[in-house]
Parts: sequence; C-alpha cells; structure tokens
Amino acid sequence: MKKIALLGSTGSIGTSTLEVVEQHPEEFSVVAMAAGTNVELLARQVEKFRPELVSVGNEQAAVQLRERLGSGYKPEIVCGSEGLELVARHESASMVMTAVVGSVGVGPTLAAIEEGKTIGLANKETLVSAGPVVMKRAKEKGVAIIPVDSEHSAVFQCMQGERAEDVARIILTASGGSFRHLSREELQQVTVEEALAHPNWSMGAKITIDSATMMNKGFEVIEAHWLFDLPYEQIDCVLHYESIIHSMVEYKDRAVMAQLGTPDMKVPIQYAMSYPCRKNLTTEPLDLAKIGSLHFAAMDFERYPLLQLAYECGKAGGTHTAVLNAANEVAVDLFLKGAISFLDIEKVVRRTCEAHEGVHNPELEEIFAADRWARTHALASV
Amino acid sequence: MKKIALLGSTGSIGTSTLEVVEQHPEEFSVVAMAAGTNVELLARQVEKFRPELVSVGNEQAAVQLRERLGSGYKPEIVCGSEGLELVARHESASMVMTAVVGSVGVGPTLAAIEEGKTIGLANKETLVSAGPVVMKRAKEKGVAIIPVDSEHSAVFQCMQGERAEDVARIILTASGGSFRHLSREELQQVTVEEALAHPNWSMGAKITIDSATMMNKGFEVIEAHWLFDLPYEQIDCVLHYESIIHSMVEYKDRAVMAQLGTPDMKVPIQYAMSYPCRKNLTTEPLDLAKIGSLHFAAMDFERYPLLQLAYECGKAGGTHTAVLNAANEVAVDLFLKGAISFLDIEKVVRRTCEAHEGVHNPELEEIFAADRWARTHALASV
Repeated sequence: MKKIALLGSTGSIGTSTLEVVEQHPEEFSVVAMAAGTNVELLARQVEKFRPELVSVGNEQAAVQLRERLGSGYKPEIVCGSEGLELVARHESASMVMTAVVGSVGVGPTLAAIEEGKTIGLANKETLVSAGPVVMKRAKEKGVAIIPVDSEHSAVFQCMQGERAEDVARIILTASGGSFRHLSREELQQVTVEEALAHPNWSMGAKITIDSATMMNKGFEVIEAHWLFDLPYEQIDCVLHYESIIHSMVEYKDRAVMAQLGTPDMKVPIQYAMSYPCRKNLTTEPLDLAKIGSLHFAAMDFERYPLLQLAYECGKAGGTHTAVLNAANEVAVDLFLKGAISFLDIEKVVRRTCEAHEGVHNPELEEIFAADRWARTHALASV
Repeated sequence: MKKIALLGSTGSIGTSTLEVVEQHPEEFSVVAMAAGTNVELLARQVEKFRPELVSVGNEQAAVQLRERLGSGYKPEIVCGSEGLELVARHESASMVMTAVVGSVGVGPTLAAIEEGKTIGLANKETLVSAGPVVMKRAKEKGVAIIPVDSEHSAVFQCMQGERAEDVARIILTASGGSFRHLSREELQQVTVEEALAHPNWSMGAKITIDSATMMNKGFEVIEAHWLFDLPYEQIDCVLHYESIIHSMVEYKDRAVMAQLGTPDMKVPIQYAMSYPCRKNLTTEPLDLAKIGSLHFAAMDFERYPLLQLAYECGKAGGTHTAVLNAANEVAVDLFLKGAISFLDIEKVVRRTCEAHEGVHNPELEEIFAADRWARTHALASV
C-alpha cells in the first residue's frame, strides 16, 4: 500500500489522482490532502478517502469543512500555508503529489523533500521558478522527483532502461494551442472568449492562454532542463496537432523513443504513483487506425516569441525564469480581465524579463523577491 | 572490445553489420565470418576486418578465396555447413550475429547457444521454423537472443526498463507492401516485375514478395511470440505506410511506447551489438516536421489471408510454422519463375498447411522433416 499526501485535491490533477486511487484501493491510499476553498467537493473527497489530515485555504474554510462533515468522519483539520506544509510533511505518507497551482506549491514541495518523500510533481512553479533550489535539495536528500505533466512523464518513460549519457535530445510535442491557424496579424484581434476554446481538452483559463502563446511549452522546456539535467541545446519542440505522441527522446544512435496514448492525465498520474511498475487503468486505449494520421510541423519561434524567450531566460538561469513566470501570470491576468490585447501579453512579459537583473545561484528568498519584483514591474509597464 | 562472429557477411544485414563495426573499431571486432559464394566481396571484407576464421559455402569457393587473398592476410579458411558451425562456435567470439538467409541458419544458431554466446538474431527461420527448440535451449543455457529485425528491435527497445507482466500487447507496424493500393481482383494480374518495386527501400526478391503478401508480417508475428513469450492474442498488427514507427508496445495502463526512426538497418544492428548501451551512429536523424504526417489503418486480414494463416499456424504450434515457412518458400519461388500467379502463392501455402499433420513439442529433426514434407507437398500441389 502506497500512502500519498495530495496537495490540491479539488483541482483537475487532484481529482484525477483520486480517480486513480479509487481504481486501486488495495494499492494506494490518501493519508493527507490539501485544497483551497472548495469545501463542498473537499468534504465529499474526505468522506470517501478518509485521510488522517486535511488542510484548507483559510480558517473560515476550516470552520465550514468541520460543519459540513458534521458528526461523520472527523479528520484532523488544519489551514493556510502552514497547513499545506503539514500535509506535505505528513508522517505516514511516502509520496507527495504536488498538484496545487502557483508558487504556493514551492514551499510544501521543499518541505516534502526535506522529509525524504518521493515527489509526484504537477506544480509548474516548483521547477520554473525555484528549479535551482529544488533540484539541489532533491539531489542532496536523494529524493526522486517523478513528473506528472504528460510531456515530462512521456520523456521519463522513454528514458527507462536507458543511460542518461546516451540521450541526444528530448523532443517535446506541442499541439499549437487554440490559435494555431491564425497569423500574427489576426492574433492582434482575438478575444478572451475565442482564446478559451482549446482544440484538445478542457483546461483552465490560465493554461489555455499559456498554450495559445506557447508560454506553457516554454515552461515545460525549463522544467525538462531541471528534471532531466540536460542543457537547453538538447531540448527541442515540435508541433504535433493531435496530442497523441506525448513527447520523445532521441538517442545518440538516432533511435527515437516515444510515448503515445489517448490524452488522459490519469495515465501519467498513475505512472508516477506506480513507478517503476505499471497497473491496469480504465481509460480509452489508443487506436491509431481509427485516428488515421498524426501531423507534425517545425516549431515556429517567430510565431511564438514567448517560447523563444523561455529558452533565453532558461539559458540565463538564476532568477530569470522566476521573473518569466511571474510576469506572464500578471500579463495573462490582465488579458483575461480585458485590460490588454492578446499580443500585449508578449510585450509585457518580454519588457519585464529584459529589465530584470538576475541573481545567480539564488536562495529561495531571492527567487521569491524576484517574483514579487516582476509582478510589480509587469503591472507598472502596462 | 566486443568480439563478434558474423554469419552471412556478404548479405544485406552482414554488410550493414560491418559498416557498424567500421564506425566503432575501438568497440567491436569481427573475429570470425561466414559467407556463401560471393568470394570477391568476402575477400575485401577479410582484408579489411581481418577475422581469425572464415567460412565459405563450399570447397571451390574456399580455393578461390585462398587464391584471391594471395600472399596478403591469411585467416583460417573452412567451408560448408560444418564451417558455418565452426564460425558460430568460434572460441574468441562472445556474440554471434546470425544474418544468413534460410533454414541453414538454424544449426549454427543452436551451436552458438550451446557455447553460451549472445545471439544477434537476423535469421527468420531460427524462430519461425525452430522456435520451440531454439527458445527451449536458449532458456536452459541462459542465453540472450537480441532481435535485429527492425520491428522486433523496436519492441525490444520499448520493453527496456519495463516488467514483462505489464505488457498488454505488442503492435507490429506493416507498410503494406508494394501492392497495398490494389484490390484482390487486381492482384490476380500482377507480374513479377511489378511485385519487386517496394515503396520504402530495396530488399531482396523473396522478402519483397513476402511483404506484398503480408507473409513477412506473419513470420514476424510468430517470431514475436517466441522472442517476447507472449500469446498470439497479445500480438497485433497495424498498417503504417511510412515505416517510421518501427513497432510499439501497449502496457496495461494503456500507455504506448514506440520506437521511431528513419529506416536504416544499422540502427537495430548496432543496438543489438551495443545493448544495453547506445553508441553514436552516423545515420539520417528523424525529422518528423519534414515528414509532416504519419498514416495508419487497421490491418485487413481478408486482404492479406497469409497473415491470418500465420496466426492460425502459430496458435497450432509444433511443426505447423515450419511447414508455413517451407511452403511459402516454394510458392514464392514458383511465382518468381512465372509458374504460378501472385494469388496462387496463398493457395499453395494454405493447401500445404491444411494437409499437414503437426507434431507437438518437436525435436529439431522432426522440424526439418516437416520442412522437407512441406516442400514436396507444395510442389506437388501446383
């Protein structure tokens, strides 16, 4: 029985993680979980999975959860960032799934690493912003960080049974986002409503915009750099519209290993949990004959300047990627509120990145300071 | 330094194997080689790679080779099936590449297994005809049989770092052969000349016809059964015209691992030799963006009845697959000589297979006897 602490249980990755646990009650149990303020969903999850410890976003939500659970199952209830960290450190968990969104995920991930727990990583900021600090601590503690993102999970799967030194490059696939058929001129006019119709599956608003600007792929490039300890020159991207090949690894003998499947986050989630074994999973099997064809095109860095910028920030290193992430968060938020145009997202982000004076080998506090600076600067630059 | 005995040095796989050795003179050496009667090419290979032992097809070729080498490099020269077996058993080789064509490959492969040598398997008959005997001996001797065929090498690569029990099925890709656009009616009229124009790369006449009838894929299904110890129900085929995905493995979590690349036999040959490591290889890297799209279609067993028959013979087991192979060899030969039509190949093979009374758990002699019976029966049935 693998005992799991789940950070972000009510989000998309969190609920899928619980679906996986549900399919294997004899293999996995959730001993601690944390969520924000979606008390009703959390209460149902608590009643079903009976964790020992539950954390919610704030004191008010804690009161609501206690009331809602009533005289039924009564876990220990904590709250806030302190509560989140308690869940990450929970004694009986051997693995922590970090599925919270935003830089709030960094602290608890580091706490879990300190406790020597295996990390199932679904929080982007942990590596995009705090990669230098997190990977250093994980190495020192001998902690395995297993990617949950479908692209990185694919690369991770393609590297099983292989030697790291035999890798020539990794090739991340990108669907191209919801505006892949539009020219740069047409992009100037797109609305929030148009932006939120992603071709492949329903995602949150933020990640849908990040897919359309290819910023999301840029973050994945940075994460891949840290996860697989590869220089940026060995990380490529290719456009692949159907999102069936989740990513690839080319080896130095030019053999390319790929991981494919019908898009379903339960597959990489379960793989992170069952690694290095696989377990049955109820999901749609891949039927390539039915799909008929898979399409590919070269990545267009002029069409997607934020991807280019991600490589630049990644190579610059230090606090530059934290600034990239923070500036992008502000810019997307401004676009979603109608304050700036779609193409202005790029301008705000680039302007902020260019104004940043980076810190090399930053401590965590310096990363957070750079993040705060970037938010202020991005807002002021509009 | 890995020392290799190469059976079939002047054939397509043999010359590619030597190209790989040439790229890595510090890693591989050929200490023994065997060929048929292409003395001129063999002499050049001997002068270049300087094996200790060389075998040729017959006494006359041995005399010619001695003359041709003159006062230059003088290896020990042997001949015939006895010579082939001496090469396979050669003391200083740790690996034997069996790249000879036909059932003549079975004996030396078994001899190499007896000596505990790792087998790089590129001889089809070894498993299609003699699978029950060969795999039993390989298991008893703890000998690794590493596939060289691109499809089986792909499956083998997709299984690295995975547990055998986690495999749901393997999916062999098939280009469809040179007549994949023709209907059954049109097939009745095709000529030998038309049959020998394969869409993807130049191959021998026999394997080109076997690709057009899908018999070759049938043989690969049978080989996969033995190599990966899987029941036929877990071996599927899919049409894939571009031959870029060389084959796939679906796991029980529905993740599909695939091996891709620009078609070049040097990749699986070198992988068999360098396994479990990879080494640099000068070959065309895969450029999916340039290729643009990959196409797939369901295998059509009515269009390709010999593939269906291969599954039937495989499931029947024993000597049935040896009969399938022998009958097909006779039928293809008759077609290439203009004695029967293209669709008659199927009839001759099916008739022979249906007339065969199989032997279960056959000894090698019973397999050879079934092979001889099938050839006689196939010829007589025309």
